[in-house]
Parts: sequence; C-alpha cells; structure tokens
Amino acid sequence: MQTLYNKKLQLMPDKLAQLSMNVKCTKGSMSDIARTPEPPYYAVIFSSHRTEGDNGYGEMADRMLELAARQPGFLGVESVREGLGITVSYWDSLESISEWKRNTEHREAQRLGRKKWYSNFRVRVAKIEREYGI
Amino acid sequence: MQTLYNKKLQLMPDKLAQLSMNVKCTKGSMSDIARTPEPPYYAVIFSSHRTEGDNGYGEMADRMLELAARQPGFLGVESVREGLGITVSYWDSLESISEWKRNTEHREAQRLGRKKWYSNFRVRVAKIEREYGI
Repeated sequence: MQTLYNKKLQLMPDKLAQLSMNVKCTKGSMSDIARTPEPPYYAVIFSSHRTEGDNGYGEMADRMLELAARQPGFLGVESVREGLGITVSYWDSLESISEWKRNTEHREAQRLGRKKWYSNFRVRVAKIEREYGI
Repeated sequence: MQTLYNKKLQLMPDKLAQLSMNVKCTKGSMSDIARTPEPPYYAVIFSSHRTEGDNGYGEMADRMLELAARQPGFLGVESVREGLGITVSYWDSLESISEWKRNTEHREAQRLGRKKWYSNFRVRVAKIEREYGI
C-alpha cells in the first residue's frame, strides 16, 4: 500500500506532490505511528465497518487524507482496517477538529459515508492527556 | 448490563472459556465497534509495530483481553492490525486505567512487550469528550 501510495504521488501535480511529500516527511504515512507533540492535544477516533464494494471509497479516502493534512492544526493520522477499521487523527485543538468537520468536501464525504460507504461507524472526540512509548 | 456482567464474572472467575463467551456476548468481540456509555469516559490508544515471529504474543494477547475484561471499569475494546496495530480500550476512569496498568500479569506482559514483541509502540491516554455515529 505504501508503494502504491508513493507511485500515485509521482503522478500528482507539483503542488500536491509537494504537499504529500510534506505529509510523508513530517507527519508520517498512515501505517506509521504518528509523531505527535507533548500532550495535551486532541484525537478523533473513527471506528467503522464498510459496506460491500468500493463505490468510490478508496479515492475519497485518499482525497480526505490530502485535505486533512492541509487543515490548520492537523498533527498526524494512523489508520488500519481488517474488517473493523480504526482511524485516529490527531489535532492541536477542538477548534481545528470543528473546522475540519465543516470543510465542504469533507461534509460531502461524511454524507456519502453515511449513505453508502459505512454500514456502521462511531466517532469519538478525545483529549490526549498523556502518552509514552518505546 | 454492567452489573449483570460483573456479577457473572464473579461467579465463574476460573472458567475462561465461559468468560470469553460472556465477553463476546456482553461487550462485543474486538472486531466489533465497542458499545460505550455517554461521555465522558476514557480511552487508551495503543499503536504498535510487531517484531518478527509470534514468540508467545498471540497467547499473551488473548490472556490480556480476558484479564482486562475482568478489571473494574473496563468498558470495551476495539483492535485491528495490518502492519500497524491499533488497539483502543475504553475505561470509566483514569483510576481504572492505572489499576489495569499495575495488574501483576499485565506488568509482566508490558515488560515482555518492550523486550521482544514490539519494535515500536505508543500509548496515549485520552478523555472521550463526545461521540456520535450511525
């Protein structure tokens, strides 16, 4: 998936490629653990089950990642699907999350998500209070 | 449901097969979206990359799920791995999370996790402030 993703980036217009490269270099890919700042900051935990078939979902998901990464306050994202999908995006404030939720293209994606891409989902907005790791 | 669940567990702490069945019936399996109460409540977001080979990891993971589900304040868990692994466990309070972190068997699992099962991980403790879904 990483390889596919990179190949796709090479085909993009310069500006988008540059943007995506920034995402890759500074925020990591979705299969990396996000490099987030010292807490407190915020997370949106999106847990979902897909409907059958793609129906334009893959393209939308890529586009939403590009758009989210351009939003003020975006800190990173981690995403995995194996039946159940869990995507956690990280943000500097609740205001940044609200702005992203109101983004016009994202609103359309939310509408289509409810209508055809997800059979079930749950969105949880959380304040990260502490973190640690290896 | 919470009360019923806890009572059931107290009646048969040593019958792990039955316990697992109850976990599945009352809290959902890890591939379901957790049925959590009205916020506020807490989450532990565990993002990780595994080392090569199993080395006892699968057995430990099953055992930790059983143990976690018996902890006071456990609300549910969602877990997915596809290269990157994301496990989100939900708890009623920070105190319940601290108790779970101090559990003797869990401490040993944490030690082995750092030593041999994970090449990289990040633990984020978060307060769920709001949620919505389909």
